[in-house]
Amino acid sequence: MKTRALVPLALLAFVDWAAAQATATIYGVLDLNYQRVTAGDRVAPGVSGETINRLDGNQYTLTANRLGLRFMEDLGKGLRAGGVVETGFFPDTGQTANATLFWNRQSYVSLASTSWGEVRLGRQYRFQDETVRLNNPFGNGMILGLNYGYRTTGPFSDPGGFIPMFVDNARVSNAVQYMSPVFRGFRAQAIVAAGEVAAPRYEGLRFSYAKEPLTIAVAFETQGPGSTSRAKLWTVGGGYDFGILKLVGGYQRGRDLNAAMVGSPTDPAALSDNIGSYQDTTSHTLGLRKDIGAFAVGANYARTRFRSAAGESRSLGRVAVGATYGLSKQTRLFAAYGQATGDLRERIVESRLFQSGIDKSF
Amino acid sequence: MKTRALVPLALLAFVDWAAAQATATIYGVLDLNYQRVTAGDRVAPGVSGETINRLDGNQYTLTANRLGLRFMEDLGKGLRAGGVVETGFFPDTGQTANATLFWNRQSYVSLASTSWGEVRLGRQYRFQDETVRLNNPFGNGMILGLNYGYRTTGPFSDPGGFIPMFVDNARVSNAVQYMSPVFRGFRAQAIVAAGEVAAPRYEGLRFSYAKEPLTIAVAFETQGPGSTSRAKLWTVGGGYDFGILKLVGGYQRGRDLNAAMVGSPTDPAALSDNIGSYQDTTSHTLGLRKDIGAFAVGANYARTRFRSAAGESRSLGRVAVGATYGLSKQTRLFAAYGQATGDLRERIVESRLFQSGIDKSF
Amino acid sequence: MKTRALVPLALLAFVDWAAAQATATIYGVLDLNYQRVTAGDRVAPGVSGETINRLDGNQYTLTANRLGLRFMEDLGKGLRAGGVVETGFFPDTGQTANATLFWNRQSYVSLASTSWGEVRLGRQYRFQDETVRLNNPFGNGMILGLNYGYRTTGPFSDPGGFIPMFVDNARVSNAVQYMSPVFRGFRAQAIVAAGEVAAPRYEGLRFSYAKEPLTIAVAFETQGPGSTSRAKLWTVGGGYDFGILKLVGGYQRGRDLNAAMVGSPTDPAALSDNIGSYQDTTSHTLGLRKDIGAFAVGANYARTRFRSAAGESRSLGRVAVGATYGLSKQTRLFAAYGQATGDLRERIVESRLFQSGIDKSF
Repeated sequence: MKTRALVPLALLAFVDWAAAQATATIYGVLDLNYQRVTAGDRVAPGVSGETINRLDGNQYTLTANRLGLRFMEDLGKGLRAGGVVETGFFPDTGQTANATLFWNRQSYVSLASTSWGEVRLGRQYRFQDETVRLNNPFGNGMILGLNYGYRTTGPFSDPGGFIPMFVDNARVSNAVQYMSPVFRGFRAQAIVAAGEVAAPRYEGLRFSYAKEPLTIAVAFETQGPGSTSRAKLWTVGGGYDFGILKLVGGYQRGRDLNAAMVGSPTDPAALSDNIGSYQDTTSHTLGLRKDIGAFAVGANYARTRFRSAAGESRSLGRVAVGATYGLSKQTRLFAAYGQATGDLRERIVESRLFQSGIDKSF
Repeated sequence: MKTRALVPLALLAFVDWAAAQATATIYGVLDLNYQRVTAGDRVAPGVSGETINRLDGNQYTLTANRLGLRFMEDLGKGLRAGGVVETGFFPDTGQTANATLFWNRQSYVSLASTSWGEVRLGRQYRFQDETVRLNNPFGNGMILGLNYGYRTTGPFSDPGGFIPMFVDNARVSNAVQYMSPVFRGFRAQAIVAAGEVAAPRYEGLRFSYAKEPLTIAVAFETQGPGSTSRAKLWTVGGGYDFGILKLVGGYQRGRDLNAAMVGSPTDPAALSDNIGSYQDTTSHTLGLRKDIGAFAVGANYARTRFRSAAGESRSLGRVAVGATYGLSKQTRLFAAYGQATGDLRERIVESRLFQSGIDKSF
Repeated sequence: MKTRALVPLALLAFVDWAAAQATATIYGVLDLNYQRVTAGDRVAPGVSGETINRLDGNQYTLTANRLGLRFMEDLGKGLRAGGVVETGFFPDTGQTANATLFWNRQSYVSLASTSWGEVRLGRQYRFQDETVRLNNPFGNGMILGLNYGYRTTGPFSDPGGFIPMFVDNARVSNAVQYMSPVFRGFRAQAIVAAGEVAAPRYEGLRFSYAKEPLTIAVAFETQGPGSTSRAKLWTVGGGYDFGILKLVGGYQRGRDLNAAMVGSPTDPAALSDNIGSYQDTTSHTLGLRKDIGAFAVGANYARTRFRSAAGESRSLGRVAVGATYGLSKQTRLFAAYGQATGDLRERIVESRLFQSGIDKSF
């Protein structure tokens, strides 16, 4: 059925399904960008200031590459059952994003009611990720996104150590989440992932308000093996649309961080050749965005301070600008530039990065 | 196309295809359940009687998690060509069920005729699996299913050794199957998987009758490297619907069992710390099911005797009760409890198991 | 939605999509064939002339097993955005074709214009593959295809060393391709894959002409770590349809070949037990094809000469005949026989091969 088999992806009328309605959606993103990367002078012996060109579908995409299936069944009386399975991949090589967890991005089943809210079981987003994506102009897109951080090992090899800008260990397995209904823009969420073989118990709370022109969210999360050494993470993010300009910003504070909370490969040990493992982080960011027709331009600044158990600290920052141009709602061209600042600016691979690419969602 | 692209999954009219008709079906199951597991007292040092809570999408699901594509083309004159590819996964973490065989559940091409039957080439179900699923109230669902057995290694780590209740090494690769047409409820099946690098030659025969109120099937299978040491497996399963109640039951007898027949990780060596490898098994089960509106309740008992080459034997049994509630044809809530009995009842991980979950098919 | 959910794969009317049109296509191939293989007398100790029967979905298929998604959005003014993700697999076992690159067959995003041509970013075909597939009667189908070559290690184990008939390292990652519009049958293509961690820089040019009754293509490719040692590959392929018969043929010349160009597992070292690594290859082929109703019959001969750095050389050839019968446009039965010739004919596994199978595309 190669050339003839077409599944219409535009809005189709719902079809009766034995007094219920059921739909399945195939969706995805193909995003590839050219990057010119200049490594910091102290990343590794022999790569001081080295510049490479690469085609990348992994880091600093406008939106992350993915393929997913979304299911939704209307059970009547305001009740819905559904679910999502979503795999990440890198179209520059065809590689899956996670070698062991194929449906690594999301895989959950959900039961939702218009009056009492929604329960989700399975692998899903942590609250830090849902909050960090509000603090930058392009929703974690391009080098302006604060979810990815920096690589600390060279020369340009994968995988390696990472330093986060904002801690964003995006997902958690074995989780049960409750989401309240939205009431006048307000919503509350609570999540628990039982401590199983793979990871210790994770818990989180999130409160958000979204009503034009204001969006704001606050999340508190904790994870760890014991009660005294549990990692704690407070994350705030949001934006205000002034009409002529949209302002975005965020704050995050991490205490007693451990690998389970920060996530591999952004393990605290990544800084060991500098100040030993970091234990605490404090991060700030401020940005703005302006939409002009099919264009959107944005800029932001972020700064993180890492503190070791011994109290020694180092800073890492980034200043970045970017723009997107929409050929359609689903197809965008983009370009951005980011430059690292702070104490650690020469210890990272992507010290200076220019990028330009295409993002096709469907 | 994230929120707008909807593929209607309800019954669509077939469309002419150059004098033929061709359809593709995306289907799947999302099933997650909470489990409270109490390990046996002699599973491993330090885990005697330990209890854990977990969210699981792997073991004891109501129906196994999967995603599949089913193809069917009507060639005219009663002839059809088709095929299936189906992957298993665990939505609690997003992991695929089989690290090396992605389309592990089924992948075959088929040519079928209304008059002479069907031929299937590829990876498909063994006859033991198609028969065992008839012997319990919920078609291998929940802790009442007899296809999964018990884990023998702790503490709660995956993977580990398994002991089967009924031998059910569900699938075989490189297989050619012939299925007769159904004649007055009767059907005969024959299967051969050529001995290739991965596994020795496998052969099976199955006869079944399915006409309300009676369903019954008998399977004989054999697999092994030589002619004298070939494993032999007889499996019988079925049910009778009395209207007020449905009775189900089964019997299985295995002789000269080897790893190819029993399957990894249910290798005979799993019992080595008890009686050495088992060579023969004899299993019985009896159960009942009652449907009341959207509810279904069921209970069953099963018992297996393992015999070593030296003639020493051990028993393992299970008594279980369960219930399902259908929010729709495709969405069910479920809960069950099972408790191990017999000589080996304290040597297994899931000695006592309570579970409750949701199963969403599409 | 197991049995009821049908996605119509026949031609559907395009649907308006906010002044644009967007479609997604699920497509694939299920191809399984029985093979009777007789190994060469000098493949390995103990397998001299051994014959095995196997069910195979990997080598010598009529068309390679795959599942893919193809996306296309009409942006207006002759502009289109699209992309492809395609995974290969072997339905005899359910295994994916590439353990690390799931979307190994193709994964790219594309922007195309009717006036200025098309740009593709991502993993895509090398020009050698697009050219070799023109040089044989069944488009690289069955044992008549020249893309696969021969295995050199026994006894029938996977993976092992390979010897190519025509060099066909089918795909390249991290690539940017430009394709000109077709002008009176002519088209020009250029490709560059940046030298990244995984592989050194690859570059290619291809010119083709396709207008009944003539099809012809010429490709030049180069890849390698340095400028002096870069591998060079010239490939020519095409056919002429005389009406009563179609003639096909091809020529290929490789110089300074290295593993990056030839591809693993067809590494030049495969001949080490014969003449050491080969460095140069020269390949010829000639074939014919005749279509009679639903039948197509074809035959071809191919011969390759391998030369080592020391100038020593060995030859390997193949003579093959085959036929296909179309049950429909999407369902074909096929059978073929091929026999190796030349100096190395007894050093390979598939010295003589008979095959018969079914190929179902959708």
